[in-house]
Amino acid sequence: MSNDTAALSRAMTLYTYFRSSAAFRVRIALNLKGLQPEQAFVHLRKHAHHAEAYRALNPQATVPTLVHDGRAIGQSLAIIEYLDEIAPVPPLLPADAFGRARVRQMAYVVACEIHPFGNLRVQEYLRGTLGRGDDDIKEWQQHWIGLGLDALERLAGRGRFCHGDEPTLADICLVPQLANARRAGLDLSPYPRLLAVEATAYELAAFADARPENQPDAE
Amino acid sequence: MSNDTAALSRAMTLYTYFRSSAAFRVRIALNLKGLQPEQAFVHLRKHAHHAEAYRALNPQATVPTLVHDGRAIGQSLAIIEYLDEIAPVPPLLPADAFGRARVRQMAYVVACEIHPFGNLRVQEYLRGTLGRGDDDIKEWQQHWIGLGLDALERLAGRGRFCHGDEPTLADICLVPQLANARRAGLDLSPYPRLLAVEATAYELAAFADARPENQPDAE
Repeated sequence: MSNDTAALSRAMTLYTYFRSSAAFRVRIALNLKGLQPEQAFVHLRKHAHHAEAYRALNPQATVPTLVHDGRAIGQSLAIIEYLDEIAPVPPLLPADAFGRARVRQMAYVVACEIHPFGNLRVQEYLRGTLGRGDDDIKEWQQHWIGLGLDALERLAGRGRFCHGDEPTLADICLVPQLANARRAGLDLSPYPRLLAVEATAYELAAFADARPENQPDAE
Repeated sequence: MSNDTAALSRAMTLYTYFRSSAAFRVRIALNLKGLQPEQAFVHLRKHAHHAEAYRALNPQATVPTLVHDGRAIGQSLAIIEYLDEIAPVPPLLPADAFGRARVRQMAYVVACEIHPFGNLRVQEYLRGTLGRGDDDIKEWQQHWIGLGLDALERLAGRGRFCHGDEPTLADICLVPQLANARRAGLDLSPYPRLLAVEATAYELAAFADARPENQPDAE
């Protein structure tokens, strides 16, 4: 069994930004599936996501958006679950229902409880509306990242990845979040399990090639 | 085809709190599936979720947690996807991959982009660490809820629910979020589509019975 990667890739466009960690997740998933869609670069710091044409694809004006056969999907995890359904090899979720629940739980710890607080627009709110400076913003980021990673360090299994010995949706969320954690200056030494998973993940080209600094639009 | 509701219910315990909108989501899903697990009440304002026994089930110390056959699952959306897999009637996701992606996208707009900013612990951070008062907190909540609902109003389809004519994961996330929006004092008149979906949803006992005020631990 294999994916029809050439046909699928031709029918897809990924709207992306090198530094978006949600786009980073989708890039990993695409790489694991062997998919290489056309990329359209949306420069968040230049507010390119607010252009009308982009909003028509994604009313949230967030990155990434995947367009497949002319139909747009926003939200990185919705995109990744979709990719896992239309291109099932290799699977990004375990075969058993409880395993899938565990993996989704870990993914949502990142996506619902850490990542929202680090978003550019949240930083802009803290800076603009609440008048906070760099130190407060760094403390804010470190606080929420730390809380979530504390839980993940306990939730992660004993295999090579967060759940078992193959990469799943949980690792796809964890690895970009650790990159953000470093950018926010968080001490990662309390998280040896997570660091071991990250090191294993970066041995795979699918993860390494998806890093922000390896993108065509990287600055 | 039907779920073995009696056997499944006997094997489950839901750790819940009446006012948690993540628990509200899971209650709706359980009701739609005809499942009635035992409930254990975790009083968030009395910090019952920080007890060691609860943390052993859920390292995040968040509500809800579902224990099934002695195995614990945290994160409401992971629980609901699990329920949809082990008790597939009625389905909470559409039959087609693109429809599922649309529904998950809408669900994640709520779960990843609105709900995180209204959490009790975020309010505590704004109040404690950042020293903000009630007005600033209300403005903060209204800002993020409004941004997300603006997108959802455009994403929702033309059927009776967010996607088509049957309730899905998207409605399960939307309805509790609208209850929170009212509590935060947001003007909902810009969202006629979403209000129509909500009215339709509350005609179903599965949604109405799941409301915070109808729970045994309601105050």
